[in-house]
Amino acid sequence: MKFQIDKTDGNARACTITTAHSVIKTPIFMPVGTVGAVKSLDALDLKEILDAKIILANTYHMFLRPGSKIVKEFGGLHGFTKFDRSFLTDSGGFQAFSLRTNTKNDDDGIHFKSHIDGSLHYFTPTSVLDTQYDFGSDIMMILDDLVALPADPKRVKLSIERTIKWAKKAINYHLQKRESGVGLNQNIFGIIQGGTDENARKFCAQSLCELPFDGLAIGGLSVGETNREMYDTVEAVMPYIDSARPRYLMGVGTPEDIVENVERGVDMFDCVMPTRNARNGTLFTSFGKINIKSARFIHDDTPIDPCCDCYTCKNYSRGYLNHLYRAREITFYRLASLHNLHYYLHLVSDIRTAILEGKFLEFKKDFYSKRS
Amino acid sequence: MKFQIDKTDGNARACTITTAHSVIKTPIFMPVGTVGAVKSLDALDLKEILDAKIILANTYHMFLRPGSKIVKEFGGLHGFTKFDRSFLTDSGGFQAFSLRTNTKNDDDGIHFKSHIDGSLHYFTPTSVLDTQYDFGSDIMMILDDLVALPADPKRVKLSIERTIKWAKKAINYHLQKRESGVGLNQNIFGIIQGGTDENARKFCAQSLCELPFDGLAIGGLSVGETNREMYDTVEAVMPYIDSARPRYLMGVGTPEDIVENVERGVDMFDCVMPTRNARNGTLFTSFGKINIKSARFIHDDTPIDPCCDCYTCKNYSRGYLNHLYRAREITFYRLASLHNLHYYLHLVSDIRTAILEGKFLEFKKDFYSKRS
Repeated sequence: MKFQIDKTDGNARACTITTAHSVIKTPIFMPVGTVGAVKSLDALDLKEILDAKIILANTYHMFLRPGSKIVKEFGGLHGFTKFDRSFLTDSGGFQAFSLRTNTKNDDDGIHFKSHIDGSLHYFTPTSVLDTQYDFGSDIMMILDDLVALPADPKRVKLSIERTIKWAKKAINYHLQKRESGVGLNQNIFGIIQGGTDENARKFCAQSLCELPFDGLAIGGLSVGETNREMYDTVEAVMPYIDSARPRYLMGVGTPEDIVENVERGVDMFDCVMPTRNARNGTLFTSFGKINIKSARFIHDDTPIDPCCDCYTCKNYSRGYLNHLYRAREITFYRLASLHNLHYYLHLVSDIRTAILEGKFLEFKKDFYSKRS
Repeated sequence: MKFQIDKTDGNARACTITTAHSVIKTPIFMPVGTVGAVKSLDALDLKEILDAKIILANTYHMFLRPGSKIVKEFGGLHGFTKFDRSFLTDSGGFQAFSLRTNTKNDDDGIHFKSHIDGSLHYFTPTSVLDTQYDFGSDIMMILDDLVALPADPKRVKLSIERTIKWAKKAINYHLQKRESGVGLNQNIFGIIQGGTDENARKFCAQSLCELPFDGLAIGGLSVGETNREMYDTVEAVMPYIDSARPRYLMGVGTPEDIVENVERGVDMFDCVMPTRNARNGTLFTSFGKINIKSARFIHDDTPIDPCCDCYTCKNYSRGYLNHLYRAREITFYRLASLHNLHYYLHLVSDIRTAILEGKFLEFKKDFYSKRS
């Protein structure tokens, strides 16, 4: 992976990440392809309609079904899904945490029960990498010890101790594997934990930055804390995250969260929000969110957002989309997901343009004024 | 509407139907766009990927939601859905029959209860045309009195009496409307009823052919009778259906049904089978049906049908589709629907080529030999 900072504007950065499969201009938003498909879309939608350069797939889901060996048989995620640009895969720990299926963390890993068939599994810092080698992920995430917020300080302390211990195991294992020729085109990111405790975050960041990870992620946010706590935590930890490597804020967030955290120095984001909200009828626009099921759209022959040039806005009216949503037509989910992902991908692309022009703060002001 | 017979081969016909919105080469299969969308697909899928020239929409569904006045506001079905080729709409009677929501037919029309909100409605021979004028349908179907098979002879007799009476009301109303400038680009098809009673079918066909309908449909089949009864009924009634007009067999059917009924002189077909089966994982191929959920496809990196050049077969493997189906991913429904509709549209197109070359029987033999 090559990483280059193209321009900074305050703490906001425009960078270029080059993996074996694509060139990624940051800030970047990664659509979430949970089980190897972004819900309702196929690989050509992502490449030809949305021009996404990198998507995320969930290790937890793909590990359980179809299983990493099957994905490997097909040439990894790229061969299996036919999305031949970059994949980032998480470690699986977050789903074991969020699906809460009899999950129990111990000092060496995470025990959990499959939400599909109840079978028992154990993720360790090295096992989740083996899974991700099979996937051929361009960016692999390490196993971390996640805690729900608000959290007991003792639990936060234990979390960062385990996370650092697991990070060391992971990076050592990865370096060994590379020596044996495995994962040569694959990159590995560390994950900083510490809840909203600034000292814990700082300590964890410093410890992880000593290790030769290809990038650093901030994990364990967007899990119950307020927006303000999230922004403050990111701001507090950022000075301790090596600026020569990509910085990824996991599972975040709203358009506002993206603008705020780019301002604080984040390069990469992922979130199910654009696709999940799409399926609930919530659509993002330059003037804020709308819910397409509202009766006020029944007679409306204008597009979702008159300023949007996405596939859906170029072709369909609010009135027709309102009808499809009310009739619960599957067609709606794809059209709404294409719109929302276009919104997110263009948001980060517009932010990048502003950074390159040294106009991030103007962009931010304009962004908020349009939605007030 | 212009109708021209390009070639006959036995009773099989290759014709050209030209509406205000498209040129339709027959035999033709019409994908079913129940509520104004073929399930899981959008208008561009139908035009650019499948190149469908005509689709069907259900009057019952669109009448209840969003309502014909709203569709009219958007410029009819073409403006509302953005599928700007031809639409055929049924009369609504079939859904009132098949959804069996307190439906009661009397001598003047059909009383039914909405399956959406329980509201009471009454379809008459003229009301269903008013609805279809609002839709701007290229081909409108008249209200008919449908009976489930097997049926009591008395009920069949009543059915054809009512159907003929309603047909006269419908065509007279349509001629009046045209004089007042309504529906000038719209065409109207009569529907022949009579169950599997050959004399009833003959009488109904002769009575309807005396009226200036633009085309004739055979209704009331594929509702409980055997395949053999369906084929025999079509064969028996065909000599009494004016050969100078298009002949449409409603709601039929399997690939075999299409081949058999083209041989008997049918030009047009519609059926939910390709899209409904797609959603259940049943995929059509040149060598018969397969169910993609079968474990034998888990490791299979070949396309659904190696002889198929559809969007799905060009891009995705059986193994990936098996995975998407098992994970109940929405993405699967679109990919499977695109494949099955491609299969049906190419089947009728291949049949047409065979008819034009005077090789229908060779085609039929080959069709069956591949699936034995």
